[in-house]
Amino acid sequence: LSPKSVALIGASANQSIFRGRLTDALLDYGYPGDVYLVSPSTRDIRGEHCYTSIDEAGDAVDLAILAIPAEHVLAVLETCGRKGVGSALIVSSGFSDEGSEAGREREQGIREISQRYDMPVMGPNSQGFLNASLPLPATFSGVVIDGSDHSQSANESTGGAVAMIAQSGGIGFSIYDKGRDLVLPFSSVIAVGNQAVLDVVDFLEHVVADKETQVIQLFIEGINNPQRFERALAAAALAGKPIVATKIGRSEVGAAASASHTGSLAGSHTAYEAVFKRYGVQIADTAEGLLAYTACFSYWRDALPRGKRVAILTPSGGAGIWLSDICEENGLEVVALDAQTRALMDDMQPEYASSRNPVDVTAQGLMENGYAKPLELLAHSPCVDAIIVACTSSRTQLLEADYEALKTLRSSLEKPVIFCSYTKQNPDFTRLLAMLGYPCLTDMPSVAQSVSRMADYRNFRNTQAAAVNEFHPDTASDLPTEPSLPANATLCEYKAKQALSSFGLLLPIGRLTTSEDEAEAAFAAISGPVVMKIQSPDILHKTDAGGVRLGLSERESVRDAFTDIMGNAGAYNPEAEIDGVLVEPMANKGVEVIIGINRDDDFGPMLMVGIGGIYVEILEDVAFSPVPVNLVQAKGMLASLQCGALLDGYRGEPPADTEALGQLLVELSHFAHRHKDVIREVDLNPVLVHPAGAGVTIVDALIVTQNCEAG
Amino acid sequence: LSPKSVALIGASANQSIFRGRLTDALLDYGYPGDVYLVSPSTRDIRGEHCYTSIDEAGDAVDLAILAIPAEHVLAVLETCGRKGVGSALIVSSGFSDEGSEAGREREQGIREISQRYDMPVMGPNSQGFLNASLPLPATFSGVVIDGSDHSQSANESTGGAVAMIAQSGGIGFSIYDKGRDLVLPFSSVIAVGNQAVLDVVDFLEHVVADKETQVIQLFIEGINNPQRFERALAAAALAGKPIVATKIGRSEVGAAASASHTGSLAGSHTAYEAVFKRYGVQIADTAEGLLAYTACFSYWRDALPRGKRVAILTPSGGAGIWLSDICEENGLEVVALDAQTRALMDDMQPEYASSRNPVDVTAQGLMENGYAKPLELLAHSPCVDAIIVACTSSRTQLLEADYEALKTLRSSLEKPVIFCSYTKQNPDFTRLLAMLGYPCLTDMPSVAQSVSRMADYRNFRNTQAAAVNEFHPDTASDLPTEPSLPANATLCEYKAKQALSSFGLLLPIGRLTTSEDEAEAAFAAISGPVVMKIQSPDILHKTDAGGVRLGLSERESVRDAFTDIMGNAGAYNPEAEIDGVLVEPMANKGVEVIIGINRDDDFGPMLMVGIGGIYVEILEDVAFSPVPVNLVQAKGMLASLQCGALLDGYRGEPPADTEALGQLLVELSHFAHRHKDVIREVDLNPVLVHPAGAGVTIVDALIVTQNCEAG
Repeated sequence: LSPKSVALIGASANQSIFRGRLTDALLDYGYPGDVYLVSPSTRDIRGEHCYTSIDEAGDAVDLAILAIPAEHVLAVLETCGRKGVGSALIVSSGFSDEGSEAGREREQGIREISQRYDMPVMGPNSQGFLNASLPLPATFSGVVIDGSDHSQSANESTGGAVAMIAQSGGIGFSIYDKGRDLVLPFSSVIAVGNQAVLDVVDFLEHVVADKETQVIQLFIEGINNPQRFERALAAAALAGKPIVATKIGRSEVGAAASASHTGSLAGSHTAYEAVFKRYGVQIADTAEGLLAYTACFSYWRDALPRGKRVAILTPSGGAGIWLSDICEENGLEVVALDAQTRALMDDMQPEYASSRNPVDVTAQGLMENGYAKPLELLAHSPCVDAIIVACTSSRTQLLEADYEALKTLRSSLEKPVIFCSYTKQNPDFTRLLAMLGYPCLTDMPSVAQSVSRMADYRNFRNTQAAAVNEFHPDTASDLPTEPSLPANATLCEYKAKQALSSFGLLLPIGRLTTSEDEAEAAFAAISGPVVMKIQSPDILHKTDAGGVRLGLSERESVRDAFTDIMGNAGAYNPEAEIDGVLVEPMANKGVEVIIGINRDDDFGPMLMVGIGGIYVEILEDVAFSPVPVNLVQAKGMLASLQCGALLDGYRGEPPADTEALGQLLVELSHFAHRHKDVIREVDLNPVLVHPAGAGVTIVDALIVTQNCEAG
Repeated sequence: LSPKSVALIGASANQSIFRGRLTDALLDYGYPGDVYLVSPSTRDIRGEHCYTSIDEAGDAVDLAILAIPAEHVLAVLETCGRKGVGSALIVSSGFSDEGSEAGREREQGIREISQRYDMPVMGPNSQGFLNASLPLPATFSGVVIDGSDHSQSANESTGGAVAMIAQSGGIGFSIYDKGRDLVLPFSSVIAVGNQAVLDVVDFLEHVVADKETQVIQLFIEGINNPQRFERALAAAALAGKPIVATKIGRSEVGAAASASHTGSLAGSHTAYEAVFKRYGVQIADTAEGLLAYTACFSYWRDALPRGKRVAILTPSGGAGIWLSDICEENGLEVVALDAQTRALMDDMQPEYASSRNPVDVTAQGLMENGYAKPLELLAHSPCVDAIIVACTSSRTQLLEADYEALKTLRSSLEKPVIFCSYTKQNPDFTRLLAMLGYPCLTDMPSVAQSVSRMADYRNFRNTQAAAVNEFHPDTASDLPTEPSLPANATLCEYKAKQALSSFGLLLPIGRLTTSEDEAEAAFAAISGPVVMKIQSPDILHKTDAGGVRLGLSERESVRDAFTDIMGNAGAYNPEAEIDGVLVEPMANKGVEVIIGINRDDDFGPMLMVGIGGIYVEILEDVAFSPVPVNLVQAKGMLASLQCGALLDGYRGEPPADTEALGQLLVELSHFAHRHKDVIREVDLNPVLVHPAGAGVTIVDALIVTQNCEAG
């Protein structure tokens, strides 16, 4: 991305076509390296000599940009390779994006040439990239060429540099364009195109390592190499570089369209969310969110909020109340200020201003005191984690008068201050604040969410970031991998319980019985009433088959139950292979929980937990995580559930044993991780969580495995 | 709002103060009526003669604008009244907004003068109003004066006129300012100020009656006269004028700040939501939503979508997928297109385009066919209710080339087409589309929600709008109001059940008993097992008091239970006044539901329903409505619950009797309406809903009443 010389193959003087726009971009935007224009039909463009072929261009071409019809690309790329060109960018389309066999073959050809000459290739069908610090606008995107000077914002802003990597060039560059309005200092914008050779993960690795880049934006549909992707996310977490990601293809419709789009299969969104969460990636579903979170991380990466308690400062009562509503609706606490801060604020302000949060300084008060004085007071309050200014940005006079004070304040701030204009964005106002080091946004919900994401990221950095490598796919493969589970099998309850038990999980003491006598003996070995359940790989819905009897406490009824159950099962499915009847102690009461493992095509086994039996399904109230998890993460999963409060001891019930439940999640996740090549599905349903100290009971269990090679 | 002549008292040539800005506005913006400038210190301003007092100005002053210090307002207002001035607008602050006793007294003085001379007064502390069609910019708002010609957008746009009424002038005019960027044709912008005399409801009545206004925006914190407000909302519903409302002070913090703000108490947000729903008002929580919904109603009020099935048209695969995700996440269905539409689309498009929804026509296809051709195809599809175009708005060439075709298409469209630019808003592009009659927005979530709101409003208009007067507070008072419930009382279970039963509600056959013999007799009269429950106004938690026994089916155990219950209750609360023990049949199984009435300070009794016992509390999953409700509304409440699916017969259970449950809601709402002056609280908890046809059982009931005068 930082070549010393560039050859543009397909240069043109016609500015209405993309080749011409690329030519202009290379010549006009201050690229400091050598430029070789190559065109078979033109002698010179705007006074620059044109070579008829790449062979004639200088010897040391670092980067060749191919902007020629698809059918010529392979031949020219071959020439580049032979000549020893360092790398290539193919902006031409007509490859796998075309959906034709010929297109796919051409794309395969690119891969072969790239490999043969050890020459990295970006694209094809890429809008190119912008390296804003070099600067090198290797793109035909209109927003770069028609827009204002791309290096301007970087110079004016005091925020940390942002790199954007996008699987859709149009969207990547439009985010860049909107970001310039927020004076976001971009280091690079990268449109990966069809990813024939270099893919999102390659560029992600690059920007994580790039010294200049502080914040990373991802706009992706799917990832080709999930394990390398996880490794790159882990590296970003360790480097302390926040990633803000938009993953499209979230809905079923979107995912279906995605599969028909740039040839990349959209992964399951749930798995992506869980993986992002593990590595501290902040998800933005909308353009507004993507921009706002990025802006806040760019400006405040070194002073992230300790929590979610915000103070709101405003000259407009209405705007303050509105923003308060939106903050509370987005999980922030518009905190009651401490008495000292309120007293100091009251001293400073006009009589009719309010020191109650949201702090309404009134237009009059703002004229008298400016922004810096009340902001400093609020920043000193021990109960404030972040400050949002609901301001009008229509005039810059006040800001100019307050310039030095705001600058001084900025250098001492250890918590973020974000301006949110309720009037139309005023570029001068935004630019002035950017120079001072404050972001100025306009979308209240995105601002509120940004504060929340910054606090989440700080918390992640403090508690989880160091541990990301624990879960690393590579670390994972250090564990013994010899499979102790049969492949391609359905392990019914007693077998699944045996497998879990031999892995060290605590399970009910039970016995598989194959006769009335055995059943009676099993009952005798258990104190208290028992439950009896049919065991057959062919009968998964035991209750439907009449295969379950509960609360038996007499020898005779145990014998009768055995006969009944076997009879019912035979009638239910005469073909079923029946292993016997499991006799177990009746479980004590507890909160009903569903725990499972589901295999994601990209990211392997995912741990799942939901609370509340039937409500799990109705509310789709479940949490997911890649495996393994540690206890903090397991508890985080429980806390994220809507029905999580059921565990706290609702309506006079004692609090449930969340320690034991968390431990079970950890153990099951290790079990799944240990058997990650073979496990397809684990279903512990229900698990009963007893009062604190009394542990959990895995009432029923099922394991389904796959062929190892499928994994 | 449409005066023939205006006197500005406090005119000034100094444009840096608001009096000067007002003066300029009156002189410069083409107001066709007579203007009298009044200033004690200036002879003329910009060549216009200044009068020293209002007395000297012409005889027929329709509107006097007072822009003078608060302490002079009363005297000048008195003069205006004496002179026979038609109406007054007071922009000065320093009244109830100041929070001082003197300020409140001055505001009271305004009310008295207004009443004495029958002279309507707007303000004080109002930013004024803009009548865009006259035009009359009676405001000092910078966005009107500094912005582009305010009548321009109205002339260019083919949308229906929008009136904005705001309790915060700064926000009202900033929405107007942003709306101009969307080429929204405003008829008026009204900042009500302190509402000393004229309030939001007065202006709402005005714009509902105003012939020009088609869509109404409300930005409110609270309403002084809820019953008149409901009447005005009903009038808007009958007139078919959609209202889009932002209600601030939704959160507790916001509401507390609101109370300390412009002197208007924020009502309970839940009640507002329920009232808005009843009258078809669409709620927008954010500025983006407020603008987007308004724009869509303005352009498409005569072609609202029949349902929530959308087709997405785009030249960018990524943008199409992204918008699909966001549509699905906002309750729309990105519908599978019918085979015929797909075939026609495939015929028209390049090979690598996709006719699968989201329809990716590709940049190439767009160049070849323009927007109108594919839009026409989609509009003809029987399974599409609305179309969203995810477009890039950076260039207008394509639109210009397609101008006539888009115009022809527009006149034949019976379903909405909305453009949503994923690139930065381009004013030229937006203006061109506005002239053609299509809105162009940029915020994907707001666009998706707009389609949803339009479909909701169409549904409201078809099914509910005609009935709004049924629920009218006035209609309500036609019912007999003689209270048959005691005031200031707590009616424990058996008394509450008697009251409901005598109103015609179906209740379990039960009997209050005061001795073992009576209990035994009651048991004998009931077939099947019984439940026995202590009855005391002082024991509301009967189970805690050991006052409930379930499933008794023997005479002897009924007698024992009576003694036990009375003993337990006496031990639990020796002071309690005990009425006896209620004997009732055991209820059959059913889905557990909570139904109640809660009194809202503004809107009176509100009906509440939640499904699922403990989950109602954990999930706060409840629906509210003003009373009374009809059966359609009652079922709508049930359908809006997260746990509503429980009634459909989940996991093999039979569907529950939603007819009977809906009927119970209707009856209880009538009961509450009949006793609206005295009822404070009704609690039917639990109600069991049996399988379809088997009805419902009100297991427990409680009624609390208040002093009639309090209502």
